[in-house]
Amino acid sequence: MDFRVDEGEFGRASSITVRGVINMLSEKLKNDDDEPRPVVPLAHGDPSRFPCFPTAATAEDAVVDSVRAAKLNYYAPSNGLHSARRSPGANVLLPRPGFPHYEARASCTNLEVRHYNLIPEQGWEIDLENVKALSDENTVAMVIINPGNPCGNVYTRQHLEKVAEMARKLRFLVVTDEVYEHLTFGSAEFVPMGVYGSIVPVVTLGSISKRWCVPGWRLGWLVTNDPNGILKKSGVSSFSLILSNSLTRKIIDSINVSVDPVTFIQGAVPDILQKTKEEYFSKIIDLLREAADTCYNMIKEIPVIDCPQKPEGSLFVMVKLNVSLLDDINDDLEFCLKLAQEESVVVMPGMALGMKNWLWITFAIEPSLLEDGLRRVNAFCQRHANKQ
Amino acid sequence: MDFRVDEGEFGRASSITVRGVINMLSEKLKNDDDEPRPVVPLAHGDPSRFPCFPTAATAEDAVVDSVRAAKLNYYAPSNGLHSARRSPGANVLLPRPGFPHYEARASCTNLEVRHYNLIPEQGWEIDLENVKALSDENTVAMVIINPGNPCGNVYTRQHLEKVAEMARKLRFLVVTDEVYEHLTFGSAEFVPMGVYGSIVPVVTLGSISKRWCVPGWRLGWLVTNDPNGILKKSGVSSFSLILSNSLTRKIIDSINVSVDPVTFIQGAVPDILQKTKEEYFSKIIDLLREAADTCYNMIKEIPVIDCPQKPEGSLFVMVKLNVSLLDDINDDLEFCLKLAQEESVVVMPGMALGMKNWLWITFAIEPSLLEDGLRRVNAFCQRHANKQ
Repeated sequence: MDFRVDEGEFGRASSITVRGVINMLSEKLKNDDDEPRPVVPLAHGDPSRFPCFPTAATAEDAVVDSVRAAKLNYYAPSNGLHSARRSPGANVLLPRPGFPHYEARASCTNLEVRHYNLIPEQGWEIDLENVKALSDENTVAMVIINPGNPCGNVYTRQHLEKVAEMARKLRFLVVTDEVYEHLTFGSAEFVPMGVYGSIVPVVTLGSISKRWCVPGWRLGWLVTNDPNGILKKSGVSSFSLILSNSLTRKIIDSINVSVDPVTFIQGAVPDILQKTKEEYFSKIIDLLREAADTCYNMIKEIPVIDCPQKPEGSLFVMVKLNVSLLDDINDDLEFCLKLAQEESVVVMPGMALGMKNWLWITFAIEPSLLEDGLRRVNAFCQRHANKQ
Repeated sequence: MDFRVDEGEFGRASSITVRGVINMLSEKLKNDDDEPRPVVPLAHGDPSRFPCFPTAATAEDAVVDSVRAAKLNYYAPSNGLHSARRSPGANVLLPRPGFPHYEARASCTNLEVRHYNLIPEQGWEIDLENVKALSDENTVAMVIINPGNPCGNVYTRQHLEKVAEMARKLRFLVVTDEVYEHLTFGSAEFVPMGVYGSIVPVVTLGSISKRWCVPGWRLGWLVTNDPNGILKKSGVSSFSLILSNSLTRKIIDSINVSVDPVTFIQGAVPDILQKTKEEYFSKIIDLLREAADTCYNMIKEIPVIDCPQKPEGSLFVMVKLNVSLLDDINDDLEFCLKLAQEESVVVMPGMALGMKNWLWITFAIEPSLLEDGLRRVNAFCQRHANKQ
């Protein structure tokens, strides 16, 4: 397996992007001859590359059956996106940490992006006061991500209800990215934002990618939770329009969802959803819980980095880097570049997510490789720590 | 099978688009209760909906094997598109008839689109004088489609060589859409434009969609034919840049190619290409040849429409409508709307392709349905023809 990322869409982008940073880090990795240790990809977040994260037999069967039925090779009908329109003056609120530079891609829309803060000390809850201060009469939507990417947190029912009430008062809708739905392994219960659709219209983004370990199958969906029909009523129908083009495209771009899923995979979805047994999911969840524990416990032992919140969902954790304790490293990017070069471990600098001097780490890799990688991070930190 | 197209991306677009027109026509179709005859979709161009156009067993096997191998569920690496850049002042030449309103979608680029004419009386050859007149120092590329969509023609070796020489003189590259490659069934031999890559850089667009009857599998490719490395040399590298974002995106958008093909289908491509036997292709070609013959011969019998060129490739034919011979029909759009309403036959008005008072017809449907549909078109024309 080669974890070096092809020079791709973001490889030569002038703005900082996750993929661009991974490319930078990959260039620092030693050649095979000099480095007998395997590369540890802690910045990728794609467990499906590892045999311990297979997809469900039912999902595999459903796709094979759908191919064999030979009735779904044709063009799928268009999925309802309207043609792109410009929305001058409108703005949308996105979380920080998040993926702040994706908006550079959406250069064909006038939709303005504003970032609200998540609070690390409060389990990465949304800073509601910050949202209020940032929003105005042109704010059409706020995006939340739950379970959290990149933070690995899971929002409580109480917090989500507060978000819904606030959005209703401020008169914008909530777009919720729940692609890590069901991937929770801590004490927190996952609550879908859609249950508050009667308070404020909610648009939910889902996918088979994460729960079934098949991101390469390129299938997700948007669901509207709007029992009061607010999106349909005139007067706010512009929300729907904005949502279904600029914003949707932006979100779709951000997570690389295709707007044109393969027809026979669409045909396999009912079987995938209905036939997969609970034991498949629980096995994956057990693996993730163990990996998250390992990750959290090993990070606690490492000097100079600190994890404010044990991950309870998704595949990631954010950890704080204390550069003042390091001798010859000035920021998160330098940390990650030297780590890649000296230890063949790829970790994402927080600056790529709008969080300078933080690190973004995935624990969803082969367990032995995770432990190996974190040991190397530890050795690296020991070596570069202040000697006083 | 329901051939009514979902109200989709183009359904509410303000500009005229192929899908928008199909939606208009679909609304004219009678409800099932009033109309016992099946709808005849002569404006769709997707034979894979019909059992007589199956995919190859090898293609099906290759995809199933790829799913079963369970090693290709992960995110595919990015396919090399660079981030979008603006190209102020540059222009690109596209054929007419073609898909003139797709450029409305490419609103995020400054790339200007100019349309050159094809000559119906000369087998839809490119009007080279027209190309010369339209091009200037800001022309970066011309796009040709061979075998022709929507015209069903196949260019001769001599004509393609002239195009290459002209492009070299005028200093722009040639982008060739060859997705109907191999789907030729007349006397004309298909010549890939890439063989003239030493005269002028050629970028070829290909796909498994057409030859294997699997448009829903969403897999195509771009290949550069540039043995002299002109695209790479500095000075013309801007061509490459423009090509790899604005123009490529425009082309990719135009034909609805996903930029993110499913990983396991990518994995199946070598088997699909290598293992499919000649007899699968020849069977499909025989079917298409017969359908094209039927279509051409039956159209010859219909008053008021005329086919200047027997189709020799792709799935389509363009026919000329003589409105002066009709009593109560003033143009191609009115013709198609009344035809849908009265006969449940869907035919594309030429205006959607920049050709007023022409019709675009696909013959790649179930043969009995094709004959049924063309008989209805005949009855319709007889009924509306001038009585003198």
